[in-house]
Amino acid sequence: MTSPAHIPIDRSRFLSSLDALAAIGAIPGGGVTRLAFSSEDRAGRDWVEARMRALGMTVSIDAVGNLLGVRPGAGEGPMVLMGSHTDTVGSGGRFDGSLGVLAGLEAVAAMNDAGVVTEQPVGVASFVNEEGVRFMPDLMGSLYVTHKLEADAIRAIVGVDGTSIGENMDFTAYTGSREWRDLPIGAYLELHIEQGPVLEREAKTIGVVEGVQGLSWIEVVFEGASNHAGTTPMALRRDAGYAAGALVRFVRELAVGIGEPQRTTVGSIRLSPNIINVIAREAVVTVDLRHPDDGGLAAAEDRVESFVRDLAVREGLGVHTRKLARVAPVAFNPTLIGHVQASADRRGYTSRRMISGASHDAQIMAAHCPAAMIFVPSRGGVSHDVMEYTAPEHLVAGAEVLLDAALMAAGVGGAIGGTNPGRQRGNT
Amino acid sequence: MTSPAHIPIDRSRFLSSLDALAAIGAIPGGGVTRLAFSSEDRAGRDWVEARMRALGMTVSIDAVGNLLGVRPGAGEGPMVLMGSHTDTVGSGGRFDGSLGVLAGLEAVAAMNDAGVVTEQPVGVASFVNEEGVRFMPDLMGSLYVTHKLEADAIRAIVGVDGTSIGENMDFTAYTGSREWRDLPIGAYLELHIEQGPVLEREAKTIGVVEGVQGLSWIEVVFEGASNHAGTTPMALRRDAGYAAGALVRFVRELAVGIGEPQRTTVGSIRLSPNIINVIAREAVVTVDLRHPDDGGLAAAEDRVESFVRDLAVREGLGVHTRKLARVAPVAFNPTLIGHVQASADRRGYTSRRMISGASHDAQIMAAHCPAAMIFVPSRGGVSHDVMEYTAPEHLVAGAEVLLDAALMAAGVGGAIGGTNPGRQRGNT
Repeated sequence: MTSPAHIPIDRSRFLSSLDALAAIGAIPGGGVTRLAFSSEDRAGRDWVEARMRALGMTVSIDAVGNLLGVRPGAGEGPMVLMGSHTDTVGSGGRFDGSLGVLAGLEAVAAMNDAGVVTEQPVGVASFVNEEGVRFMPDLMGSLYVTHKLEADAIRAIVGVDGTSIGENMDFTAYTGSREWRDLPIGAYLELHIEQGPVLEREAKTIGVVEGVQGLSWIEVVFEGASNHAGTTPMALRRDAGYAAGALVRFVRELAVGIGEPQRTTVGSIRLSPNIINVIAREAVVTVDLRHPDDGGLAAAEDRVESFVRDLAVREGLGVHTRKLARVAPVAFNPTLIGHVQASADRRGYTSRRMISGASHDAQIMAAHCPAAMIFVPSRGGVSHDVMEYTAPEHLVAGAEVLLDAALMAAGVGGAIGGTNPGRQRGNT
Repeated sequence: MTSPAHIPIDRSRFLSSLDALAAIGAIPGGGVTRLAFSSEDRAGRDWVEARMRALGMTVSIDAVGNLLGVRPGAGEGPMVLMGSHTDTVGSGGRFDGSLGVLAGLEAVAAMNDAGVVTEQPVGVASFVNEEGVRFMPDLMGSLYVTHKLEADAIRAIVGVDGTSIGENMDFTAYTGSREWRDLPIGAYLELHIEQGPVLEREAKTIGVVEGVQGLSWIEVVFEGASNHAGTTPMALRRDAGYAAGALVRFVRELAVGIGEPQRTTVGSIRLSPNIINVIAREAVVTVDLRHPDDGGLAAAEDRVESFVRDLAVREGLGVHTRKLARVAPVAFNPTLIGHVQASADRRGYTSRRMISGASHDAQIMAAHCPAAMIFVPSRGGVSHDVMEYTAPEHLVAGAEVLLDAALMAAGVGGAIGGTNPGRQRGNT
């Protein structure tokens, strides 16, 4: 058995593949628009499928369009799956999602070049509609694969433009008939850009991701009375706009008081009537809470609820809150985290353990099979924007760590040579 | 000479006149829409003009449509002018503005009924576009009368619907050719609903208005960085939304710290991109400051400016502020204030001295001639809404105090009798 530590990837081929996929749905500024279930999304997926076939992989597309390529292993064990998504937000960057899929394909190409035969099969998946911008919920493809959503329900979902997913699937001939979600999966590994500033700030190349923080989205509606800003004494006001401001301040103080890893954000405020000289009758404020520990998340939720109730009483306002989303924190598999760490160390890359602040298909897969993630730096922490950028050396480093971790998970049992292992296995 | 204290007004005629005018441009819920320079506004003004003529008044309409009716006095002294406006906001109430015009006409009718001849002529004015909703600025008619705006400039103003005032004037044949702004005016008296809750809360019938508070409108724009709410540590954020909330809290604390009569309001907040899980890149916040003293207003402005600069430095934000409006406080004429107070006392009405929180034509006229105002209660402090309401007994009380104060200002020199004094004077 050969140590996989030094199997090379082809830097030029890998970076060219990212360029080629980014050309599909390209928008000014270097970004990409491939909204889920659109023609551009379909074109991107076709490109990935063709690349899988060129690498000798067996391709399956399921009833909702999830794409899987499999490179056989020496044995019949559960596959080691790499993957991510190739859909984007409205004006997205070129690496969010695509990096994980194309690095998986480059890992397979590198195995082919090196003639590696793994014990277990190795797969690459591209999940549909990870972003959830056009059709909710997000993470749709991995929710289907893990039996949390079914095809009929997905087809019936109507998007922001008033069309159903089913109509769009039919129009783009998006779906396949080879279900693959019941294939055994032994491990899931996802390489992704960090979408945050931590690796860049600390000058680390690899994020060894230990889990995904939990998320709670609360909408708070304050109901006051609309009155004239000039004629209404301060003491007689029922000012929903003031309550919005007080909540923003509280939410920040909550995070500062608890300290990292607590994160809190008010990203959206809507006042009515929102006029300079009219006291606001209504304020709709959203609160985004994140914590890697479920108890911590629940404690923050309780403090927000109790603050808004007290505030409403004090200000003479009506208030109601609504949970818009609640995602429990996810802990990744310790063995796979160890593989990622060992791979980064052996390649000589600086790294740090971290928790993902964003949602990823890996957190859905983690309930279904061992899973872990690898992060590479995002310049300025920017994502979901054409300004999203990751340096080529970081892209390559991420692909190398993914390759190595996948090989560790899949086990290396075959001889090294130039032959396509798919064909080779067909001969044994 | 007869004391004017007990000249009666005709309650039923007066209330009916308010109903009749409110029927023009009536909207569901008992409100009115007569936007400035619209056909409904024209129809309302035609109704007022006809009423002036029926009362024997000499009517003048100037180049921008300001309407004046004059009842001659025994002498040729400067006229005592009562007035207000008959245009409304988009969904206005029936008394805002109309009350002051129709109470002036009822005062003239009562003088006619009682055969009173005043020393000085008595006039009633309806100023155009007091509200400034469709075409800015507000208080347009009184600004024209006081030579602060000229007709060509007014005609060229383009409104929110893209049409010019000139086009609208031509369409509705709104303008006249009898300029009256250079007629001598000895006093201006305006009856208006309070548009605030103070009189109702204190169970007072008459507000003896000593002045109009100053107003300062400041727009504050914070510029931060848009980032992912989940992945961006609190310490690395440049959150314009947080700054908006902190400013809202500060502005409230400013007013509470200074105490009445300081009033502060944030009525409008616009975050960009205003998405639940995205840290706001930009926040546009408006600050409305009111104070009856110019030094007090300037002090509050300084404190807002210095707070936003410090906040921006602390939060790593860009900031710029823009003065959207600045109106100096106005003090009314002590003699006329005394007439209003004496009139309320002699009629036996409860009263309180107060400062107007809203803008009125009287504050423009005050720079041109002695001026004062009379307020009557607004239920719940509501105005600029179909829910605006003032009880009939308060409407009548206001008209009586207006009548008496006007008689005190104009001097009563003629005999009492049933004859129309306009005709009577023609005979002397």
